[in-house]
Amino acid sequence: MQNLIAKVREQKPLVQHITNFVTMNDCANITLAIGASPIMTHDEGEAAEIANLSSALVINMGTVNENDISAMLTAALAADKKGIPSIFDPVGAGASKLRNASAKKLLAEGRFKILKGNISEIRFLAGLSASTKGVDASDADQKDSLQDNIEMAKKLALETRTVVAITGETDIITDGKKTYLVKNGNKTLGGAVSGTGCMCNSLIAAFCSVEKDYAKAAATAIACMCVAGEIALENTKDKGYGSFHIALHDEISKMNAFTFSDRVKIDEIQN
Amino acid sequence: MQNLIAKVREQKPLVQHITNFVTMNDCANITLAIGASPIMTHDEGEAAEIANLSSALVINMGTVNENDISAMLTAALAADKKGIPSIFDPVGAGASKLRNASAKKLLAEGRFKILKGNISEIRFLAGLSASTKGVDASDADQKDSLQDNIEMAKKLALETRTVVAITGETDIITDGKKTYLVKNGNKTLGGAVSGTGCMCNSLIAAFCSVEKDYAKAAATAIACMCVAGEIALENTKDKGYGSFHIALHDEISKMNAFTFSDRVKIDEIQN
Amino acid sequence: MQNLIAKVREQKPLVQHITNFVTMNDCANITLAIGASPIMTHDEGEAAEIANLSSALVINMGTVNENDISAMLTAALAADKKGIPSIFDPVGAGASKLRNASAKKLLAEGRFKILKGNISEIRFLAGLSASTKGVDASDADQKDSLQDNIEMAKKLALETRTVVAITGETDIITDGKKTYLVKNGNKTLGGAVSGTGCMCNSLIAAFCSVEKDYAKAAATAIACMCVAGEIALENTKDKGYGSFHIALHDEISKMNAFTFSDRVKIDEIQN
Repeated sequence: MQNLIAKVREQKPLVQHITNFVTMNDCANITLAIGASPIMTHDEGEAAEIANLSSALVINMGTVNENDISAMLTAALAADKKGIPSIFDPVGAGASKLRNASAKKLLAEGRFKILKGNISEIRFLAGLSASTKGVDASDADQKDSLQDNIEMAKKLALETRTVVAITGETDIITDGKKTYLVKNGNKTLGGAVSGTGCMCNSLIAAFCSVEKDYAKAAATAIACMCVAGEIALENTKDKGYGSFHIALHDEISKMNAFTFSDRVKIDEIQN
Repeated sequence: MQNLIAKVREQKPLVQHITNFVTMNDCANITLAIGASPIMTHDEGEAAEIANLSSALVINMGTVNENDISAMLTAALAADKKGIPSIFDPVGAGASKLRNASAKKLLAEGRFKILKGNISEIRFLAGLSASTKGVDASDADQKDSLQDNIEMAKKLALETRTVVAITGETDIITDGKKTYLVKNGNKTLGGAVSGTGCMCNSLIAAFCSVEKDYAKAAATAIACMCVAGEIALENTKDKGYGSFHIALHDEISKMNAFTFSDRVKIDEIQN
Repeated sequence: MQNLIAKVREQKPLVQHITNFVTMNDCANITLAIGASPIMTHDEGEAAEIANLSSALVINMGTVNENDISAMLTAALAADKKGIPSIFDPVGAGASKLRNASAKKLLAEGRFKILKGNISEIRFLAGLSASTKGVDASDADQKDSLQDNIEMAKKLALETRTVVAITGETDIITDGKKTYLVKNGNKTLGGAVSGTGCMCNSLIAAFCSVEKDYAKAAATAIACMCVAGEIALENTKDKGYGSFHIALHDEISKMNAFTFSDRVKIDEIQN
């Protein structure tokens, strides 16, 4: 898995984002930090054309509005046609009718290769009861056992023909058959900085550009972010959240096969 | 006042923002740093629904356009109906017809609980002569005595049934009867980083979620930001504005009853 | 040239930006760091009015959509009428039909005083073959000799009656007669942080507010950014991209005649 880091740095894939306004700058910068190249678009008029220049696509619903949906779909279908991986993050699915309808429509029609969200968002899309707290997972949705969540993810992956990634204390990444459990990371990563999930999408896109096994690529990307979070926390724990935020970018920009393999804890489950 | 910090960290209120694109990321992160949870919205279609999930609402006119006004009003009225506090920051009121008309309309119809701005913005809304310098207070508007500004703020508070907060060298926070004067802070806070005022709104929202005396909550929030600015400046004065910016987030994330009460300088004036 | 830094800090010019959502926060903060004052607008309804309050205007096409074009043109024409300098950065020109058409229309009708871009963007506007990699210059477009690029820039400057600035390993700034070559900077500046070009626009605007020789002002601004990049890299090279990003802001905020003249390497070529 650590070889993927070198591959991204060597190939410098162009990653198109149609993403939210809150964490757009962090996404562009983390894309550069892992060695890829970001381009941020919004206008439907160029969505497909830019997809044709790109090696991967990120669609993120964080500050969705009705106009964005068609640009998102246009880009997603162009990505599918070109055969490049597209990642869908249904931010806040479950929190409003607009988000619920948008998430369902995008998932049904977008032919995404990777679906990534927190447990509340994924439960919502799996048709289970879900009670988000805005854009964060609710406590109520975190009560199922890890095994139950793995089963739910596998089922959803098979139904939607995507790799499903659920971020949480243990991250679950599955293509419906093979499942990766990422056991790196810490609570600071989720609670101290807005957009660590969004940044994770950019890393997933970068890794899926260089590795056709998207479950493996996504697991590596999520593990990268988690390992960066571990090192960042150790280096900044007396300093505070602002310093932790900057350290995340630092650690991704310095991530290599050695840093990564020293710390990574991923379990792979076949079937 | 210092107990409010612990209350925010314990209750983790969800704070809805309809805010400008310039400082949105800082607002989301400062909300996390004080222990609350941010959600950023724009689309009118979900404005009211998200207000119903939230514990407070921030409306900020920084990059206003005509479409936003109705989403802002929809959210504000939903917040009023639910009984949660809403904060209005009329950024750049006085600088363009669009901003002038938007600020007046929002203030007249939005049933806000807290109105916060710089002296130019508040003078404009009080019907006095105002000459903003873009989104910053003009020198001309800073010539009145503190006492005159207090009287102006009290009058506006009673007329608009809001808590009025004017940020400046001495911050004035009044509900028309009781007035707080915050004497913490420094010029770096206003001049080195774009969006310290916007971040302040997020803190006011967080504190008003846990304290019904909104004047007291707003004064505490503004003092928190000012105290963070003092410590941040001491720790970064040889480094520069970028480091100061990060240190602000650091200090808010570490703020507690002790740090706060060690430094806070608030005068309370009854009547 | 170093005197211009003191002039900006003394006059604190207001710089209007109609710019992209990705790096807007960095642009506002770098404007403050050099001692000027930023205002970010989007709505066409206030574009001309804000230009009338301002000392310079930045138009940046980074996340362009069809609606923005008319606001951009309205602001540009108001700036021209008032006689203040306007800077145009055709981000991603060559990458999509929308960007191509927008860049050509804006350049033809906007009466800009300074046109700044990377070699792919400028080649596109000069009517030469161009193959951008999203918003970054492509390798193919960097093959011409420095001398060829200077001639191309001079020709375009005379045709469009602008100062043309091409950023790259050696930055070229020319009004068609006099040419400056800025030999400061490093690759980290272009590849580690999204938006160093956008931030450069803000500095160009600030310097053009206080110096009527726009080629000289633009060369000074670009050199300032490059010098900041050199110092930032020396101070953060073991740390990573996040720290480099913050250090850029730090160094611009501390930039003065001494820091600048110690390092600056600009060649001036007459005719």
